[in-house]
Amino acid sequence: MPTDAETAAFETGTKFGALYHQFAGTPVSPESAPSLETAIEESIENQPYAREVHVDIHSDRLAADADDHGYVELTGEYMEVTVVVDYEGVEATAEMSMVDGYPLMELVAVDDE
Amino acid sequence: MPTDAETAAFETGTKFGALYHQFAGTPVSPESAPSLETAIEESIENQPYAREVHVDIHSDRLAADADDHGYVELTGEYMEVTVVVDYEGVEATAEMSMVDGYPLMELVAVDDE
Amino acid sequence: MPTDAETAAFETGTKFGALYHQFAGTPVSPESAPSLETAIEESIENQPYAREVHVDIHSDRLAADADDHGYVELTGEYMEVTVVVDYEGVEATAEMSMVDGYPLMELVAVDDE
Amino acid sequence: MPTDAETAAFETGTKFGALYHQFAGTPVSPESAPSLETAIEESIENQPYAREVHVDIHSDRLAADADDHGYVELTGEYMEVTVVVDYEGVEATAEMSMVDGYPLMELVAVDDE
Repeated sequence: MPTDAETAAFETGTKFGALYHQFAGTPVSPESAPSLETAIEESIENQPYAREVHVDIHSDRLAADADDHGYVELTGEYMEVTVVVDYEGVEATAEMSMVDGYPLMELVAVDDE
Repeated sequence: MPTDAETAAFETGTKFGALYHQFAGTPVSPESAPSLETAIEESIENQPYAREVHVDIHSDRLAADADDHGYVELTGEYMEVTVVVDYEGVEATAEMSMVDGYPLMELVAVDDE
Repeated sequence: MPTDAETAAFETGTKFGALYHQFAGTPVSPESAPSLETAIEESIENQPYAREVHVDIHSDRLAADADDHGYVELTGEYMEVTVVVDYEGVEATAEMSMVDGYPLMELVAVDDE
Repeated sequence: MPTDAETAAFETGTKFGALYHQFAGTPVSPESAPSLETAIEESIENQPYAREVHVDIHSDRLAADADDHGYVELTGEYMEVTVVVDYEGVEATAEMSMVDGYPLMELVAVDDE
């Protein structure tokens, strides 16, 4: 049987994969970025064991890439995300940010005290 | 060559298909429904020729179906949508609502005066 | 009331928006491109009035961009799509391809003979 | 720092969340289910550390629900999924199936021999 710490890590992963693949492709502009940030956070926080979701969409990068059409389709290069899960008292934290030009999802801490 | 009225109708359809298939499956609760409504409207309004997008998520239906887990995955049965496009002066309007238990997307008016 | 030609154009648009926003973001490699092409075609052909859907994923562009990780996330720059709808005897055709570095969805013909 | 077992569990979760939220909402019929199964498996197997993905879409449940329109939108109630990840020699396995009428994603084994 998996440990609670392993299950906490798994649950963090499911939220991250859900968040990314649900919202990747969404049309987003500097003006609409704030409402999308809030909607992503509140939607994923509905899921079981999700304690906190923080999404930061980089409006400056959007603005730089969106000049002709006014918007881009959301991908990992335009956002930083932190997800915190609490499973049976074990807190697991994962983050996504750009590493070497690619968005990297990474489990950064599992704390079962 | 298609007429401007036909192209306006086509553009209305692309917004509707985008809206539905981008956001279907999003976890949503009565509490998070307002932020999701706003994000959907503002994201699709970014697209070319989109003049107005209105989304109404039925919190009462959500509440009725979400009792065990507190949320549902968004599908057509939980929302009504209106999309208005303006293409070269032709205004086209489409709506989605439940008909016979199924969500139906329908072009309701094309007005080229 | 919209004409049958306008409704055919609308229905073509809904298929295109659905196709793009359902499958954008899917991990795809040169090896997995053929199965994804088939699945996209067959899934959208299920929808009402869809007569034919053709998807061509550019494996050479995938290969060029995927070198580090072996895959990319599907976006419009990696595919060409044709959708044909038949609504009440009116045939409408739309295409997506790259124009000036952006994927452009375009209604190309409405034929009601 | 997370252990390799915890990271393996996290990676299994990201695949599961990705799979579900990328493909939920896809139009699917008994006829198109086989091509969708293959495309889902091959697409998620592209992701880092994914060793095996198995998707079984229940054509009988599709057929029962799809009578009027010939298809349904894919949700968890129509499929069983197994994902196996290998991270630094640790194998983690997760499954999705219906429990009490809801699709449940569950980490079932982490094996670091």
